[in-house]
Amino acid sequence: MKRILIVGIGAGDPDHLTLQAVKAIAAADVFFILDKGEAGHDLIRLRQDLVDAHARAPYRLVKARDPDRDRTSAAYATAVQDWRSRRAGVYERLIRDELGDDETGAFLVWGDPSLYDSTPAVLEEVLDRGAVRFVYDVVPGISSVSALAARHRIGLTRIARPLHITTGRRLALEVPEADDIVVMLDARCAFATLPDAAEFEIYWGAYLGTPDEILVAGAVTEVAGQIRDVRAAARERKGWIMDTYLLRRVSR
Amino acid sequence: MKRILIVGIGAGDPDHLTLQAVKAIAAADVFFILDKGEAGHDLIRLRQDLVDAHARAPYRLVKARDPDRDRTSAAYATAVQDWRSRRAGVYERLIRDELGDDETGAFLVWGDPSLYDSTPAVLEEVLDRGAVRFVYDVVPGISSVSALAARHRIGLTRIARPLHITTGRRLALEVPEADDIVVMLDARCAFATLPDAAEFEIYWGAYLGTPDEILVAGAVTEVAGQIRDVRAAARERKGWIMDTYLLRRVSR
Ligand SMILES: C[S@@+](CC[C@H](N)C(=O)[O-])C[C@H]1O[C@@H](n2cnc3c(N)ncnc32)[C@H](O)[C@@H]1O
Ligand SMILES: C[S@@+](CC[C@H](N)C(=O)[O-])C[C@H]1O[C@@H](n2cnc3c(N)ncnc32)[C@H](O)[C@@H]1O
Repeated sequence: MKRILIVGIGAGDPDHLTLQAVKAIAAADVFFILDKGEAGHDLIRLRQDLVDAHARAPYRLVKARDPDRDRTSAAYATAVQDWRSRRAGVYERLIRDELGDDETGAFLVWGDPSLYDSTPAVLEEVLDRGAVRFVYDVVPGISSVSALAARHRIGLTRIARPLHITTGRRLALEVPEADDIVVMLDARCAFATLPDAAEFEIYWGAYLGTPDEILVAGAVTEVAGQIRDVRAAARERKGWIMDTYLLRRVSR
Repeated sequence: MKRILIVGIGAGDPDHLTLQAVKAIAAADVFFILDKGEAGHDLIRLRQDLVDAHARAPYRLVKARDPDRDRTSAAYATAVQDWRSRRAGVYERLIRDELGDDETGAFLVWGDPSLYDSTPAVLEEVLDRGAVRFVYDVVPGISSVSALAARHRIGLTRIARPLHITTGRRLALEVPEADDIVVMLDARCAFATLPDAAEFEIYWGAYLGTPDEILVAGAVTEVAGQIRDVRAAARERKGWIMDTYLLRRVSR
């Protein structure tokens, strides 16, 4: 039987890798490296570095183009859904043509595969289509959310209270009910137009775990402008940015 | 200067340990092991095993009694707050008396220190008291939440939608608004009295990452009774249980 491992590799620091992930990488015959053409991107290089450091020769690297998402679509969820199906087609071909029977193939997934990553769902879709058969397992990883909390040395949950994890687009919908909110996938600095901004602190982090890591914390009304500026400058300098933050209501 | 490392050790599998955590354990001169008198508890043994496997001799183990929490109090948050202050007293003494200048001490924390763990807040309180000086860092770990998702091979976040993490006590408050809810710290099987139960699936896991791991998934109305029975039997057999679950609304 063909075997697939979905391996969470952590959020940027090569030492985020777990011993379980190290063993999974050493067990793989084939690594599927999907990119969107961002050749020089440090995050793609990190995957390559982890394979170099931990894979057991002989192994094969199979690079493929991850289908592009329609970012112009107003129907975000539908666009992502459609993108996921096109990815299922690509993954199906990779598993059928590039992985031998009794071989193990690995997908190295950013952060933890449970948070805003579609690899497990795409593999389920491939299985549902029925054209290839395989078994698969998931290896958890350090998420950017855990990395954010560790670097700011804070708990995300306050005593006996909930935590909400959401996207930049949905932040305004959470705020009326929530006091502790982690925001991911925010291309538009949603913290800068936060309802009830005066009631919140922010713990912001970009490029977490990497040598370019930036951390800013403070009252939203005091540091939002600074974060916008730092973020824009960093994005300009590096050509890309990944940032995550906790908003914590400290008064109401 | 004295140095403290708060090290997330993962949720039960020794291979959840990250390379960063392995290095942190190897860098420690002193390990502070706090327990509540549950000597035979497998989870305490796991800490000991990780030290045995990864610490660099010579090192010292300092065991202390973690103050008990008043579980009879109706004011849950106040009781936990008071408990945290008493812990600060214990931690202050340990750091003052058991850690030399220029030594590194480690607290090994279950799962990821960002989720329902008070070690970072307790150390902040010790610093605020001003009686001992030290620097400290946090090493993130695989949380039971990431472990749950990996073992069920599911994403916790659906496309463009939020995730809510809460306690058993607060579950009923989340349900009206939320579609994807992770529940921790649930001693009372809150899923069994879930509002809108017919709309939800559950992905339940106990002793995640350990040889005793149990997984159950299905429609809440179909598997809630089974989970209660399995849980009660396991708890009886082992003397303790830790379980976590995702509730996912699939219709409304
Ligand atoms: C598609 S999601 C994948 C998340 C990933 N599975 C995880 O566990 O972190 C990408 C988002 O994660 C966050 N992110 C990932 N890595 C990050 C890093 N190193 N620093 C800051 N944010 C990061 C950003 O919010 C980014 O928009
Ligand atoms: C005080 S909280 C600490 C959580 C921990 N910091 C983490 O990241 O998992 C303890 C709760 O975590 C969950 N938990 C921790 N370890 C677990 C395991 N191995 N299996 C299932 N649930 C676990 C349970 O819900 C338990 O009540």
